[in-house]
Amino acid sequence: MDNYNSKIGGLKKVADKLTIVVHSGDMDKIYSALIIATGALSMGIEASLYFTFWGLQRLQKGGLEKGPLSKMHMLGIGKSMMKQRMNKANVSSLERLMQDFKELGGKIIACDMTMEIMGIKKEDLREDLITEYGAVGTYIQEARESTINLFI
Amino acid sequence: MDNYNSKIGGLKKVADKLTIVVHSGDMDKIYSALIIATGALSMGIEASLYFTFWGLQRLQKGGLEKGPLSKMHMLGIGKSMMKQRMNKANVSSLERLMQDFKELGGKIIACDMTMEIMGIKKEDLREDLITEYGAVGTYIQEARESTINLFI
Amino acid sequence: MDNYNSKIGGLKKVADKLTIVVHSGDMDKIYSALIIATGALSMGIEASLYFTFWGLQRLQKGGLEKGPLSKMHMLGIGKSMMKQRMNKANVSSLERLMQDFKELGGKIIACDMTMEIMGIKKEDLREDLITEYGAVGTYIQEARESTINLFI
Repeated sequence: MDNYNSKIGGLKKVADKLTIVVHSGDMDKIYSALIIATGALSMGIEASLYFTFWGLQRLQKGGLEKGPLSKMHMLGIGKSMMKQRMNKANVSSLERLMQDFKELGGKIIACDMTMEIMGIKKEDLREDLITEYGAVGTYIQEARESTINLFI
Repeated sequence: MDNYNSKIGGLKKVADKLTIVVHSGDMDKIYSALIIATGALSMGIEASLYFTFWGLQRLQKGGLEKGPLSKMHMLGIGKSMMKQRMNKANVSSLERLMQDFKELGGKIIACDMTMEIMGIKKEDLREDLITEYGAVGTYIQEARESTINLFI
Repeated sequence: MDNYNSKIGGLKKVADKLTIVVHSGDMDKIYSALIIATGALSMGIEASLYFTFWGLQRLQKGGLEKGPLSKMHMLGIGKSMMKQRMNKANVSSLERLMQDFKELGGKIIACDMTMEIMGIKKEDLREDLITEYGAVGTYIQEARESTINLFI
C-alpha cells in the first residue's frame, strides 16, 4: 500500500496492479479471469480477484468447475467438448490455475453481501483459496491502485 | 476537467475517477454497476455511468427494476427470490441506489445512438436521472480521465 | 514501447491507450467494442483489441456479422430488426467499423490458445484484419500501457 494514492506535485503514482470483478460464474469467463490474473502475476504485476454474484458460487466447495458455458450451443461446442479440447491444448484445469494464482501471491476476495443474499456461509466456501471477505469498499481500494481493471 | 490529460515532464496526471459502460440490462449487473459507482462516490471518487444498448432500457420510465437476471435458473434462484433475499440482506432497491448515486454527485449519460436505434425518445426516459445525452466521444472523454474503467 | 513502464522519480507514465479483451461473440457487444475502439482512435488514442474465446469466432472468414444478440428477446427486438434499425440510424456495419479501425491504425490480436482449443487455423481467420497472434503475455503488455482497459 505504500505507493497507493501518494501524490507528488499533483501527480499520482499508479501501481502496477490488476483487479478483476468476477461477477459471472460461466466456465469460460472464469478461465479468462484466471488466465489473465495468473499471467499478470507471472509478469510481476500484483493481482486481486473480487468474487461476487454468480462468480462467488464458483468459490463454493466443489463449485469451481461447475459453471456453464456463457454460450452453450455456439458452433455446437458444449462444456464437456470444451474441456476435452482444453486438456488436449494443455490448458490447466481451473483448480490448477487457482493453485498457481495463490502460489504466485494473488489475492482472492469474497463479497460478503453476496454471501448474505445467497445464504452462503464461510464453511460453504473454499476457505483455502480466500484471502479475505469484503464489501464494495474493499474492492474500490484494490481497483484504485490498479492500472488494469476489468469486470468479467 | 482541470486535471484532465495535463502533462508535466511527460507524465500525465490520472484523476481519481470511475467510468462504467452499462451495456447490459440484466438486473444483477445493474446492481453491480450501481453498488460499485455509489461506493466510489462515497469514497471521494468521481463516477460516471454511460448507459447504452440494453442498459439504456433500464433508464426508460418504469424500466429500472425490469431487467432479467443474467443467469435465470442458476441454483434455482429466480428474480423474485433474489429480490426477497436482497430486501432481507438490507440491500437498497435500484431506485434507492440511483437516488443515492445522483445525490452524491454521480453523472449519468444516455447513449443517443442507442436512442435512435431503439426508437427511444427523451420523454420515454427518466430525465430526472440523466445528466446528459452523448455519443462515444463523450464516453471516451470520461474514460480517459478515469483510473477505474469497467464495461458491464 | 518507449513510454512503457518508465518511471521518473517513482512516477510511472501512463500512455494514452485503450485495450479491450473481446471475449464475447455477441453482435451487440462486438458493436460496442468496435464503436469504442474506433472512437478512441479518432481522438488520438491508441487502441488494441484482443480477440479470445467466442470473440475470436467473429474473426473467422464470414464470421463478423454472425454473432447472436446477447439478449435475443428483450423488448421483442431480434437480430434482423436490430440491423435494420442500425442501418436507418446510419450506424456502420461491423465490416465497415473494422476497416475504419484498421485504417486508423488499430491493432488486432488473435488469441492463439483459443485457436488451439477451438481447432481454428490461421487460414480460417481474417488474416487481412489480424495484426498479430499472441497469448496472455501479449495482452498484459498492451493492457499495462493502457489507461482504458475493458473486458467485453
